Amino acid sequence: MKDHVGPLPRKDAFTLPEGVIYLDGNSLGPLPHGVAERVAKVVSQEWATHLIRGWNVDDWMGQPVTVADKVGRLIGAAPGTCVLGDTLSIKVHQALSAALTLCPDRKVVLSDSGNFPTDLYMAQGLIRQLGQGHELRVVAPEEVEGAIDDSVAAVMLTHVDYRTGRMHDMARITARAQEVGAVMIWDLAHSAGAVPVDLTASKAEFAVGCTYKYLNAGPGAPAFIYVRPDIAGQVYPALAGWLGHDAPFAFEPDYRPGPGIERFRVGTPPVIQVAALDAAMAVWEGVEMADIRAASVALSEQFIAEVEARVPALTLASPREAALRGSQVSFHFQHGYAAMQALIARGVIGDFRAPDIMRFGFTPLYLDAADVTAAVDILAEIMAQRLWDRPEYHARSKVT
Amino acid sequence: MKDHVGPLPRKDAFTLPEGVIYLDGNSLGPLPHGVAERVAKVVSQEWATHLIRGWNVDDWMGQPVTVADKVGRLIGAAPGTCVLGDTLSIKVHQALSAALTLCPDRKVVLSDSGNFPTDLYMAQGLIRQLGQGHELRVVAPEEVEGAIDDSVAAVMLTHVDYRTGRMHDMARITARAQEVGAVMIWDLAHSAGAVPVDLTASKAEFAVGCTYKYLNAGPGAPAFIYVRPDIAGQVYPALAGWLGHDAPFAFEPDYRPGPGIERFRVGTPPVIQVAALDAAMAVWEGVEMADIRAASVALSEQFIAEVEARVPALTLASPREAALRGSQVSFHFQHGYAAMQALIARGVIGDFRAPDIMRFGFTPLYLDAADVTAAVDILAEIMAQRLWDRPEYHARSKVT
Repeated sequence: MKDHVGPLPRKDAFTLPEGVIYLDGNSLGPLPHGVAERVAKVVSQEWATHLIRGWNVDDWMGQPVTVADKVGRLIGAAPGTCVLGDTLSIKVHQALSAALTLCPDRKVVLSDSGNFPTDLYMAQGLIRQLGQGHELRVVAPEEVEGAIDDSVAAVMLTHVDYRTGRMHDMARITARAQEVGAVMIWDLAHSAGAVPVDLTASKAEFAVGCTYKYLNAGPGAPAFIYVRPDIAGQVYPALAGWLGHDAPFAFEPDYRPGPGIERFRVGTPPVIQVAALDAAMAVWEGVEMADIRAASVALSEQFIAEVEARVPALTLASPREAALRGSQVSFHFQHGYAAMQALIARGVIGDFRAPDIMRFGFTPLYLDAADVTAAVDILAEIMAQRLWDRPEYHARSKVT
Repeated sequence: MKDHVGPLPRKDAFTLPEGVIYLDGNSLGPLPHGVAERVAKVVSQEWATHLIRGWNVDDWMGQPVTVADKVGRLIGAAPGTCVLGDTLSIKVHQALSAALTLCPDRKVVLSDSGNFPTDLYMAQGLIRQLGQGHELRVVAPEEVEGAIDDSVAAVMLTHVDYRTGRMHDMARITARAQEVGAVMIWDLAHSAGAVPVDLTASKAEFAVGCTYKYLNAGPGAPAFIYVRPDIAGQVYPALAGWLGHDAPFAFEPDYRPGPGIERFRVGTPPVIQVAALDAAMAVWEGVEMADIRAASVALSEQFIAEVEARVPALTLASPREAALRGSQVSFHFQHGYAAMQALIARGVIGDFRAPDIMRFGFTPLYLDAADVTAAVDILAEIMAQRLWDRPEYHARSKVT
């Protein structure tokens, strides 16, 4: 087994705490070098000395598109087809609301039970808000393809399942949606920076995602939205904020949508968090997603093999076939919550998802084969000693 | 004339660039001391070393409410009635969408031509999205009170006009709205930290605002929403994000709104920008809004008197009566754009709003009477020498 692929890992590009093996980059990536310095610069130089002039001289206003282009490179989006801002939840609302206007005669939003809850909740909220008789139809992941018919206005899916890591076939499902005239929306929360994605080739109309997971932009980092360029100028945005106006600083009384992706801006961009993302994207220079994918598959396969050989109490929750998985591996274990707390107490940080899933993310930018073996060593020890049985590991945190 | 009121000014609490008189705190406040250090801590200690554990150990999840309470003190909102997040535009959508569900049989949204464009645009976008026959009725500011009748579902106003500084009578207009059963929404963008506001006494249902102006939380700082506590638990939020769910980490398939103000959370909070706001709020310890108001009125009156005496080409665009103004003073001048550029080039930073308004904000936290005199000295010089006629001051910036 190769220890590294191409220029990977790049551990020297991150601040990683001593004694920690971090298998939770699928929830919040670690701090890349250069981010703290860039954030300090935006605060103590740009804001402090340029004040309001920063919008022009430091291009705070341009960055939601220019920095989005750096994300776009990793997901097969052409320059000028993505914009940063808000949260992923808001971007789901934008995309779904726009999708429904593109398919006004159909009432079904199709999703699956593997979608992240906020996507389903935002759809429920939007449907209730519209009051136009739409229906959110949620099927099992493996039933999605068969459920796409000409009653469906929009197919809204998360590409990689947050719990199991199961990955949908983006090209195939998008093609099926388009065959029946439905609009396709992909949530790339667990894909951007994790697995190769080619939005352009997929021909999907919309994609949304976040930047605090595999893109390592920090807690609360901005979301992004991709809109296929031929339709970006056709949809009238529901969240018609001033920065999506064609001339925001003309302060006209009526909304006129800006050109293309610009109309998917809403309010003032989160300048400090956008700067953090910009600095975090430097890690990706010279890194190709194909190399990331090869390394991630190698680490994941190694982890599955070692856990199955040494920790038989855990049963694989992720697809066994690498091609069907994203960049995480999940196992069922009845006492998973406590076992994860015990792992974290020993410096192996993964996370837990109800009801019984222990989730481990493999991010080849800062993980190698030795980390995987070390993590399984500790897991095996916890299981051998039944440390998950200790009461201190059963207290629930506010955020799990 | 008093040079300071109570503990004001607090210039030593801010980083203010040498040679600058900053009269644009109504657009972006300057950097308070302690913010850079706090931002560095959240990046290099909390994020870098606690990683995902920061959500619990650093209370990232609690801060959108606990820090909002600090803002709440300045606007008469009881603890637990405000939450931070998103942008002001999104908060307008949340408030208006909720207001319309409280008044389902009425179709008119009443606003005025002094409202900030994004509020009007967001209303237009929402009305179009809903497709339920709502109408945005925009009247002149002085006609608002007379236009509130029982056809009105929601009255949506910005308390202090972004162009002229004209201030609505919050208590009176809210009372009138409630007389006819309309829901009241106040935008406090130019009020929070600028003028005394008593939301509780006003009985308004909703208020929204931003924190990058008079609250000095930096470019792209989060917005806030206030919901009157007796109705917060009644409205089903249109933007039904997972962090507004009653049990976000139970990952249930269906949305169940959280208690009270919690349901007005949407997605992941902007942790770094919330931390910046938290540190920026330290400036307000021991400061009462009554002192801020008295000082702001004194500075504004001085400015008007000096400009009218020494720069007669400028004509007052703001109400002459201090009680009718917020914390800014605006003047009409035909060559206002170029004159403002000439002022900025000499270190007096105000801003320009089309078509001919030169806008000056008075923020007594870091301005005193000597600053006002010095600013008028420079303005008088520019006018005497017709410096606004120079071509270099006519080039338009992207952001004005």
